[in-house]
Amino acid sequence: MKVIATPAYLSTASSTFEAEFKARLYWSAETDAGIEQRVADILADVQHRGDAAVLDYTARFDGLQAASVAELELTQAELKSAFDALPDAQRYALEQAAKRVRSYHEAQKQASGESWSYRDADGTLLGQKVTPLDRVGIYVPGGKAAYPSSVLMNAIPAHVAGVGEIIMVVPTPVRGSVASGGNGAASDAKPEVNTLVLAAAYVAGVSRVFTIGGAQAVAALAYGTLTIPAVHKITGPGNAYVAAAKRRVFGTVGIDMIAGPSEILVLADGSTPPDWVAMDLFSQAEHDELAQSILLCPDKDYIDQVQESINRLLPEMPRREIIAKSLNDRGALILTRSMEEACDIANRIAPEHLEVSSRDPHRWEPLLKHAGAIFLGAYTSESLGDYCAGPNHVLPTSGTARFSSPLGVYDFQKRSSLIEVSEAGAQTLGQIALVLAHGEGLQAHARAAEMRLKTPD
Amino acid sequence: MKVIATPAYLSTASSTFEAEFKARLYWSAETDAGIEQRVADILADVQHRGDAAVLDYTARFDGLQAASVAELELTQAELKSAFDALPDAQRYALEQAAKRVRSYHEAQKQASGESWSYRDADGTLLGQKVTPLDRVGIYVPGGKAAYPSSVLMNAIPAHVAGVGEIIMVVPTPVRGSVASGGNGAASDAKPEVNTLVLAAAYVAGVSRVFTIGGAQAVAALAYGTLTIPAVHKITGPGNAYVAAAKRRVFGTVGIDMIAGPSEILVLADGSTPPDWVAMDLFSQAEHDELAQSILLCPDKDYIDQVQESINRLLPEMPRREIIAKSLNDRGALILTRSMEEACDIANRIAPEHLEVSSRDPHRWEPLLKHAGAIFLGAYTSESLGDYCAGPNHVLPTSGTARFSSPLGVYDFQKRSSLIEVSEAGAQTLGQIALVLAHGEGLQAHARAAEMRLKTPD
Repeated sequence: MKVIATPAYLSTASSTFEAEFKARLYWSAETDAGIEQRVADILADVQHRGDAAVLDYTARFDGLQAASVAELELTQAELKSAFDALPDAQRYALEQAAKRVRSYHEAQKQASGESWSYRDADGTLLGQKVTPLDRVGIYVPGGKAAYPSSVLMNAIPAHVAGVGEIIMVVPTPVRGSVASGGNGAASDAKPEVNTLVLAAAYVAGVSRVFTIGGAQAVAALAYGTLTIPAVHKITGPGNAYVAAAKRRVFGTVGIDMIAGPSEILVLADGSTPPDWVAMDLFSQAEHDELAQSILLCPDKDYIDQVQESINRLLPEMPRREIIAKSLNDRGALILTRSMEEACDIANRIAPEHLEVSSRDPHRWEPLLKHAGAIFLGAYTSESLGDYCAGPNHVLPTSGTARFSSPLGVYDFQKRSSLIEVSEAGAQTLGQIALVLAHGEGLQAHARAAEMRLKTPD
Repeated sequence: MKVIATPAYLSTASSTFEAEFKARLYWSAETDAGIEQRVADILADVQHRGDAAVLDYTARFDGLQAASVAELELTQAELKSAFDALPDAQRYALEQAAKRVRSYHEAQKQASGESWSYRDADGTLLGQKVTPLDRVGIYVPGGKAAYPSSVLMNAIPAHVAGVGEIIMVVPTPVRGSVASGGNGAASDAKPEVNTLVLAAAYVAGVSRVFTIGGAQAVAALAYGTLTIPAVHKITGPGNAYVAAAKRRVFGTVGIDMIAGPSEILVLADGSTPPDWVAMDLFSQAEHDELAQSILLCPDKDYIDQVQESINRLLPEMPRREIIAKSLNDRGALILTRSMEEACDIANRIAPEHLEVSSRDPHRWEPLLKHAGAIFLGAYTSESLGDYCAGPNHVLPTSGTARFSSPLGVYDFQKRSSLIEVSEAGAQTLGQIALVLAHGEGLQAHARAAEMRLKTPD
């Protein structure tokens, strides 16, 4: 049967545009009460029983039996072996990608992640000390969503920030186990280990790796067990159980955002080969049936050409079924009145990935306010950014780019204010604090300021 | 009856230290299932019924009747009148404090909040564009915890960041209403308006003020109503209902941290007048019976002197009952073997406020890794920082300084990655992306990179 992908065709000039646009964009991260409860139970159990609970859940959900959690740890030598065993081209690509990602994040650290301070005229010092987190945890999914590039994108900024210890968890379910949809583990089955993921951990400077996953892994990282040290922040993607667990441990530890489905928005002036744009839309759609690919363009003929490219190129794609479902259910080709209007709509969407596929991308860039990453010009395919351009591919989804940012070095640092009030400064500041503290009815605050005032001679 | 405050006396040399130390630090932010459910209901109701629901809850919980939400909005003229009506000393203090806070946050923006970019040798541009949030909401509690200084500390960084619109909500309950513990509002009762809070809103550059509070105010800000515009981030402290509501809308909007009780840790070498240190401990304890004040000092005699100061100074404090309960239940005077050990313990606690009350504070500062704000030297009382030194007084509590930071300009900005791959860059990057994409089984990603490769002549 022929697979066909026809994204919704919308025009901003149509009277039904607003309603159609809103319907297409709608996505709700409904939480499942059943999952919430099971996750709460697993978290409580791991908090109380530690290693024993981790072993139980790993046996139950991943079909992976072990006598101790220590058995589930991979050594640095095992990571190195995984790297050494790769074909040359993969080893080279992984190293080059890591190098570029590292160099971008080093620039980021220099631009926005260094301590600073200054002194007032009266000698009072004010500033901020920026320090790395001591220990962080990186969640890496097993199975079909196991992406070595995500290991690089999470671990390298942590490493560049100077995090002391980076603990990675990645489930290695035994084929035929419950989690893989089978009927229990066969006794001779092997755990599914993704060599590229381990190699990426080696390249990225991960300190320790435990082959555990799910809510139990998040719990172990948040609370610590006898074997697994507690971390101060957990980042990385995961399924609904992992997302629910991260949301619940938030506050005990820091977390990154809870990601929704991936999205691309291509803003095109019609100057890019339509095949390129079609393939960029595919590259988002192939992630997941819920992924969203949208084209915004003021040129009707060009939109038609992109649809023709979609028709022609789709049959050759191995993941065409997923691509078609994603484009049919959630994709859109939107005709706008102008590029300016396209920029306005882009800001309303606040997409994760925003390609400005224009011969004059710097004309439009200043008009774009909300996006995780902005890809300028026809040569900047999102896939180059996903793997190796340098910037992080962990980006805010579902419109959260209105208030949040790409994962970065700053996520693995924290700041402490520095204040050193001079004796002279205490005189001026003391008078101000005194008045305001009394205004708030906090007399000890007032007295503490007052005690530092010199008594007049 | 005489009020006595005797913080626990601990010594690191004692065999029972670890257990006593852990027991003193223990604090659990247990969530109340009843509150959770009521808050979920209020959020859903405001999301569906908008203004009408806001009016209902404001009448029910604050005893404040209004025909429309527009009636609950204060005009800029009303804010200005509040400011103009202040006594000269308060007006001056508020303006001076705002000026210093603004100038610190401007330095912060310059140090870590500006866009940056660079070009590779092959002409590829990489960088990050930093932009302000469009619209933010600031929650300001009514009643006893209404602090004008908090208005400054939340609104000024937003203003400095360049946020387009700052919407403040502050409940003005009618005396005798349910929320104030009475038995229903008397018909001639007036809403409790805090003039200093309104004046602070005027000084800080708040755009609009609505006199609503509770979960209904958080819901209105997160989802928007006909009258109240939806914001992209909500900051500011509140009671258990407000905290639960913020936690629930997190994801729809950004939020700041959910704050626990306030804490001070004084690390003293014995060179500061003991009265000053005692008053600094009081100034934390007077906030709240759950607040925590701890002294770390290697000098036993000095600790005794601080206890004597506590005994002598407590009776003169208007809030002595709260101070005594806080110090007795949660306070501690800890004798350490050395200043170095005191620094280690400070890092274990990761306090909100850390005073280094030493004649040589710069000797110890580099050893201090985790703290919201570090106050250096005897003249730097926490209260100067609370009001007017310049740095933000919204700081991470309950040990979250291990992974989070003071509220700052960065909380009101977001970043977008910028990538412009040159034609030459697409050749090198394309080869790398190709290999990695195939390794992840994402063929459209690979093809998108491949299409940008020049075919060899």
